[in-house]
Amino acid sequence: QIQFVEDKQEFSRFPTKAGRRSLSRSISQSSTDSYSSAASYTDSSDDETSPRDKPQVNSKGSSDFCVKNIKQAEFGRREIEIAEQDMSALISLRKRAQSEKPLAGAKIVGCTHITAQTAVLIETLVALGAQCRWTACNIYSTQNEVAAALSETGVAVFAWKGESEDDFWWCIDRCVNNEGWQPNMILDDGGDLTHWMYKKYPNVFKKIRGIVEESVTGVHRLYQLSKAGKLCVPAMNVNDSVTKQKFDNLYCCRESILDGLKRTTDVMFGGKQVVVCGYGEVGKGCCAALKALGAVVCVTEIDPICGLQACMDGFRVVKLNEVIRQVDVIITCTGNKNVVTRDQLDRMKNGSIVCNMGHSNTEIDVASLRTPELTWERVRSQVDHIIWPDGKRVILLAEGRLLNLSCSTVPTFVLSITATTQALALIELYNAPEGRYKQDVYLLPKKMVILLIFSNQQSNGL
Amino acid sequence: QIQFVEDKQEFSRFPTKAGRRSLSRSISQSSTDSYSSAASYTDSSDDETSPRDKPQVNSKGSSDFCVKNIKQAEFGRREIEIAEQDMSALISLRKRAQSEKPLAGAKIVGCTHITAQTAVLIETLVALGAQCRWTACNIYSTQNEVAAALSETGVAVFAWKGESEDDFWWCIDRCVNNEGWQPNMILDDGGDLTHWMYKKYPNVFKKIRGIVEESVTGVHRLYQLSKAGKLCVPAMNVNDSVTKQKFDNLYCCRESILDGLKRTTDVMFGGKQVVVCGYGEVGKGCCAALKALGAVVCVTEIDPICGLQACMDGFRVVKLNEVIRQVDVIITCTGNKNVVTRDQLDRMKNGSIVCNMGHSNTEIDVASLRTPELTWERVRSQVDHIIWPDGKRVILLAEGRLLNLSCSTVPTFVLSITATTQALALIELYNAPEGRYKQDVYLLPKKMVILLIFSNQQSNGL
Amino acid sequence: QIQFVEDKQEFSRFPTKAGRRSLSRSISQSSTDSYSSAASYTDSSDDETSPRDKPQVNSKGSSDFCVKNIKQAEFGRREIEIAEQDMSALISLRKRAQSEKPLAGAKIVGCTHITAQTAVLIETLVALGAQCRWTACNIYSTQNEVAAALSETGVAVFAWKGESEDDFWWCIDRCVNNEGWQPNMILDDGGDLTHWMYKKYPNVFKKIRGIVEESVTGVHRLYQLSKAGKLCVPAMNVNDSVTKQKFDNLYCCRESILDGLKRTTDVMFGGKQVVVCGYGEVGKGCCAALKALGAVVCVTEIDPICGLQACMDGFRVVKLNEVIRQVDVIITCTGNKNVVTRDQLDRMKNGSIVCNMGHSNTEIDVASLRTPELTWERVRSQVDHIIWPDGKRVILLAEGRLLNLSCSTVPTFVLSITATTQALALIELYNAPEGRYKQDVYLLPKKMVILLIFSNQQSNGL
Amino acid sequence: QIQFVEDKQEFSRFPTKAGRRSLSRSISQSSTDSYSSAASYTDSSDDETSPRDKPQVNSKGSSDFCVKNIKQAEFGRREIEIAEQDMSALISLRKRAQSEKPLAGAKIVGCTHITAQTAVLIETLVALGAQCRWTACNIYSTQNEVAAALSETGVAVFAWKGESEDDFWWCIDRCVNNEGWQPNMILDDGGDLTHWMYKKYPNVFKKIRGIVEESVTGVHRLYQLSKAGKLCVPAMNVNDSVTKQKFDNLYCCRESILDGLKRTTDVMFGGKQVVVCGYGEVGKGCCAALKALGAVVCVTEIDPICGLQACMDGFRVVKLNEVIRQVDVIITCTGNKNVVTRDQLDRMKNGSIVCNMGHSNTEIDVASLRTPELTWERVRSQVDHIIWPDGKRVILLAEGRLLNLSCSTVPTFVLSITATTQALALIELYNAPEGRYKQDVYLLPKKMVILLIFSNQQSNGL
Repeated sequence: QIQFVEDKQEFSRFPTKAGRRSLSRSISQSSTDSYSSAASYTDSSDDETSPRDKPQVNSKGSSDFCVKNIKQAEFGRREIEIAEQDMSALISLRKRAQSEKPLAGAKIVGCTHITAQTAVLIETLVALGAQCRWTACNIYSTQNEVAAALSETGVAVFAWKGESEDDFWWCIDRCVNNEGWQPNMILDDGGDLTHWMYKKYPNVFKKIRGIVEESVTGVHRLYQLSKAGKLCVPAMNVNDSVTKQKFDNLYCCRESILDGLKRTTDVMFGGKQVVVCGYGEVGKGCCAALKALGAVVCVTEIDPICGLQACMDGFRVVKLNEVIRQVDVIITCTGNKNVVTRDQLDRMKNGSIVCNMGHSNTEIDVASLRTPELTWERVRSQVDHIIWPDGKRVILLAEGRLLNLSCSTVPTFVLSITATTQALALIELYNAPEGRYKQDVYLLPKKMVILLIFSNQQSNGL
Repeated sequence: QIQFVEDKQEFSRFPTKAGRRSLSRSISQSSTDSYSSAASYTDSSDDETSPRDKPQVNSKGSSDFCVKNIKQAEFGRREIEIAEQDMSALISLRKRAQSEKPLAGAKIVGCTHITAQTAVLIETLVALGAQCRWTACNIYSTQNEVAAALSETGVAVFAWKGESEDDFWWCIDRCVNNEGWQPNMILDDGGDLTHWMYKKYPNVFKKIRGIVEESVTGVHRLYQLSKAGKLCVPAMNVNDSVTKQKFDNLYCCRESILDGLKRTTDVMFGGKQVVVCGYGEVGKGCCAALKALGAVVCVTEIDPICGLQACMDGFRVVKLNEVIRQVDVIITCTGNKNVVTRDQLDRMKNGSIVCNMGHSNTEIDVASLRTPELTWERVRSQVDHIIWPDGKRVILLAEGRLLNLSCSTVPTFVLSITATTQALALIELYNAPEGRYKQDVYLLPKKMVILLIFSNQQSNGL
Repeated sequence: QIQFVEDKQEFSRFPTKAGRRSLSRSISQSSTDSYSSAASYTDSSDDETSPRDKPQVNSKGSSDFCVKNIKQAEFGRREIEIAEQDMSALISLRKRAQSEKPLAGAKIVGCTHITAQTAVLIETLVALGAQCRWTACNIYSTQNEVAAALSETGVAVFAWKGESEDDFWWCIDRCVNNEGWQPNMILDDGGDLTHWMYKKYPNVFKKIRGIVEESVTGVHRLYQLSKAGKLCVPAMNVNDSVTKQKFDNLYCCRESILDGLKRTTDVMFGGKQVVVCGYGEVGKGCCAALKALGAVVCVTEIDPICGLQACMDGFRVVKLNEVIRQVDVIITCTGNKNVVTRDQLDRMKNGSIVCNMGHSNTEIDVASLRTPELTWERVRSQVDHIIWPDGKRVILLAEGRLLNLSCSTVPTFVLSITATTQALALIELYNAPEGRYKQDVYLLPKKMVILLIFSNQQSNGL
Repeated sequence: QIQFVEDKQEFSRFPTKAGRRSLSRSISQSSTDSYSSAASYTDSSDDETSPRDKPQVNSKGSSDFCVKNIKQAEFGRREIEIAEQDMSALISLRKRAQSEKPLAGAKIVGCTHITAQTAVLIETLVALGAQCRWTACNIYSTQNEVAAALSETGVAVFAWKGESEDDFWWCIDRCVNNEGWQPNMILDDGGDLTHWMYKKYPNVFKKIRGIVEESVTGVHRLYQLSKAGKLCVPAMNVNDSVTKQKFDNLYCCRESILDGLKRTTDVMFGGKQVVVCGYGEVGKGCCAALKALGAVVCVTEIDPICGLQACMDGFRVVKLNEVIRQVDVIITCTGNKNVVTRDQLDRMKNGSIVCNMGHSNTEIDVASLRTPELTWERVRSQVDHIIWPDGKRVILLAEGRLLNLSCSTVPTFVLSITATTQALALIELYNAPEGRYKQDVYLLPKKMVILLIFSNQQSNGL
């Protein structure tokens, strides 16, 4: 019996008790929150009917989809066009492989975040010959206008922002269970689609030619299935590909820490006293960016080697308690719990900012702040002022959840690399000669990695 | 006869033909556009009545104000609280001078952008003893919720976002012409309020104890008046204060170029080929920030000394034509016209970005792009895709107007310095012994600059 | 039968055909060449007698040593004192362990470069209770004055700068073969001492309690012995310790590239067009330093991942041929052969500089420059002008050998880490309970690494 | 009566009481000290005869010169060749003007530091048509081998390292007073030559067409003469040219602080705790370089604007007393006296380094260290260990004199800019139509500055 890994924190697709939803790894909502917010806001106001109860038809007469509002298609198309501009690796793959149609005959069911960047991936798969049906891997992360734009062009999308748990599984089922159309490839992010097919449609599942899985959680489930001897199809783990660590951490965080702080607080970086807790790849990225913009950055670190690196890179290595009274901004990147305690929060100065770039939402002891003597004031989306009895305010971002997921965009270029990897993995599995891949979990073969890198470089003008 | 300097570009307070409005120097709208957009969007939907036709009363029963919607006061209060967090110089001035009330008896009429930061200034003036009536210097830059919050606390504000020209002058008049209340100080940004009083209420104008003027345009007008012998009150030019150049240019642009590009395009900086046209203070700031974030930055420069500086700072100095086909991003900061021509735009690659951080909206020859063979597609607020017949897209930001004003925030800390300067100038003029200041234009005295700097440092924990 | 790995390039301890000697890994001669040259120069002039033929006595009456000139002891003492200032990790180890005397009873024979930094190590071992006899692992790298200073304090040193091959083995033998004194520990760098004892004194060798080996070559030999079942004592490989890669490459090269270029050519870095060939750790260090000092740096790289990193770090990735005519400085760091060819050297501009930071002396095709039409002019030690028939000069540093070994210092702090590691390894092996270490090659145990790191940090004020 | 400005510190050309000589502004001795030391050392040993008493003849049979040893000419030629490689602006001027011979007929007497870089200037003047006679402006700064090389090619040089005061004036006189050859142009550095001619040869002086003066001191004297109505020839002040401030301070110090520290102490920058006292251009350069190399840099600053800049640039602004016990390196750049006091030196930790990059030798209170309880130990040239009774050592560089003059090279490229400026000034004065320049002190005209900049850029490949 396979186990569902119920990650209560970042990767959960369901609302937490507190009624707030967290976003998953590869999606940022903030782009939507900021510039494209027109659509989002009108959403909520114009119609409270569930998409499941609202028949819609696209301009070609098809109704094989279920999205919030097909009329947002044009706006969604523009978001996709923006994304295309910085996904040149994928676009160049699309162009090069378009005549060969390496995915001709592929019938792909996908379950991922549905965003402009995913749309570029899906449309690339279509351009390479595939037929696609798609659903969301997270009940909250769908860009409705993008789902509409995809549906308008004929991709069968079943997803909207704010699904219930029942909606979530209903959408997956509608995606898979389509009369006269049997999927032969799976692209999954989290393993829910895979698990659903494995349980509900074992006969269809057996005939799948390959699974491409993106997430830590999903890969973990696949390995469990494999160990249990129940994985009857080859799968590819794209989570552990060569480029991912550097890109998702160092390079990506270097940019998103600035973006996240700026969008939420408009704070000036120059001259700010910043403490970065933890000097792993994420901490290195944060430190480099803030130092470059003129902040005075200190580091706390318990690992001696990382501490020595911080030191050699020119950062003062301190104990948080020593500097807590002077600091303007604290950023946690350790992966540990309670790195910033209530006691320390009590000693921070008025106007200081606390946020988290680390693994989950437990690095800052946010729970300790939910006590009667403190007043919480939501001043913007994702921005709370915690007010002490003496009037002191500490600014808490994203309630201690991941700043880069909640309050900044993930650079499209990084998503482009992930998406290109997924496309290459699908091509590889679909075209591999019988027998090359057994019923096991594989990493992307080296030659595909090289191809990936060169796609990026070529399109990047190298 | 004084001349009105009608700057058609950045400083204009009226709509351009194209129906779009430009923002003035010291304000950024993007903060409002992004996180606080809830209010803005509901504005337009909930009520099309002109504020002039809609009687409103604040919770204290006063109706001596005219804003979009007094009910937004609470939301505006939160924006003010956010701003206060990074305006510690002003807050510390407020605290130190609160018992002395150096502005007791001052009746100040103000005409500036009405933003959260201005609100902190106004409330500081009130805390120091002044009575204030306020209006907007730009028909488009008012944060309605902030205007509401000020009105709620009793400041007489006459301003809303989207005034007509007639509204604009009506607001100024309501601000000045108040029975039983005669202003004795002016705080102006652009000179319109000053000019209106000079023309319409010459007897009131003569009794003014001092004018504090912020803008280039307004200072220019004052000098003209002074030269013509018609300036009958002392005025203080805070535009040319010591700290302004470095802050408004180098330090500020260093941060806002990143912010502006990220909010509009979500572009990844790492690895991008960027050309910065011009290596003055603005160009230096842009180059430093982008280099630090991993972009490959070239500079074009015609001044040999700046060119040599660019070179010594490690930037390749190139001709734009040499690199135009490779470049991912062009940023103009020269102050000249047609730095990027249609011919060059024709040769840019698909997906490249063009934007302007320089003086006005003429650095990029945007007019040349308004031809039938090119399609303009507005993909987000401030973001247009210009589409060539072959499908190539060039991304134009803010239609060639100032990126940092249109698409990013000005860091609150910088505005804090300006606002503190204004407050100090008002205190100085109001308290100066008779005869110290003649009917002329003055710079802020050295001792006040020192005081300003120390306020900043103290509050910055130095 | 064990094999001698005869590395003809950097690690050779004998003169090359050309009559010039290369220095080995962890030593730089340039410190001596520059400031302390007084001694070196007088050396050559004052006395051509071989030290072997010149009986000397130290101030305590001992003659159990053989150095160039015992009278230089005082000058050598000063060099040791300089070194101590930046070797605080070792000094703190010395202080902490001095009362426990963990090496009491240890009789250590050592064969390493004999420099001021080594002297600090040796004197630390003595302070911890050991008796030491020492010889040089390279015929050219001995600092004569340091050898004198050690001999003066009673350490039996057999080494001088400019030994013959016969001298080399004679010194090793004198070091090992000392009546009434049998070594029980070996500290080796290159494996020559180990091999000599293994071959000549097998009975003594068997009783050794442990070998600590520093070099790649020596470790390689040990593994061969071990594989052949002939290693009868436990050995510790300190070459592959955790900190070595980062320190010996990234951090160290970041400093020595600047130092090496400046000492040899006095070149200004600001504005120079530099190409760094290869973006591994060494290349990354060179690029970071030169970019920071205002050089315009490009990278050539064939590995796609490193290339993408260079790109993300803001370096233009180019083909050498594209830029060869513009470049001011070429630095090779690839580890490959003929990275810079004669054809490319032909196209370089007048006054350009070529040097190597990579693995060996074959990255630049120096051999191709030894043709009749080119004139070589030695303008300084380690600096040749290669003159083309048309008068063009290309400046070749260190004849293409490693710049950081030939023309710059290795920072004492880095050597301190290596030396501390060696000391800890000796302590561990000497004190380990019987049976913990078998007749095999070990890495430094984790707990010792932690101890090492903390020594560094503590002494570095972290 | 004109006054001799007797600057007792850096600019003095005579030995101080302590028997040590300081170097003047634009020369660094360290290049000689390090790599070219062969010559220097043999100098002292081979011959104690005064050059005045030793008749020498060059290979062309001329004896119209007086240098240490004409046989060093070949070695000096190589040093000149090295210098030429990074003086491309001057070389390109040489090439462009060579056919026009703009200095044909000019008879120039020069009194400057005699170094390889000066030699490139002199040989450029000769190539442009001038006849030159030269002497040294400092009794200690002459590179003997360069003086020999110049004499060998026919320039009449009268200078050697280690002149007495009497020698100094004798050389000037021999330079000026040459039968049948009357100078018509002066190139001076310090004003001694000018003053000598003005006093001793007033009739020759009157006929001079122009004086070009480099130094602060010399320019000061000229303005005094001019004010007194006694300046009977036009003079050009090249000390205050546009490029000088940036180059001699920011760019130059950015490189020389690293060079100076490395050559003297071999210290590793990474992780070092550095305090830079003063954040003017020199301090900015030092801070930027050290931060870039991984040092943890703090700043002390009393000027509020500079302090705020330091803060915005990311440096912690501290009081020296707060950090004195932790600091590894102190660098003074304030221009003030006793910035580092004995009391503070007493509290520094063992092994810390103190040096001065500021105006003169009084920033560090070195005098206070010359007390009986402290032991001075000269460990290298320019490096003293000051030893406290408890054994603590503080490393003092250059006895508190300017580190960049005493212990590092001035980048040739910077000297190239100065030298090109001098050449252009001579051309301008010599060719100006009668009456353009009166008997006054002028700055280099704008058009010449532009020309200068373009020479640099052109030759720099811009």
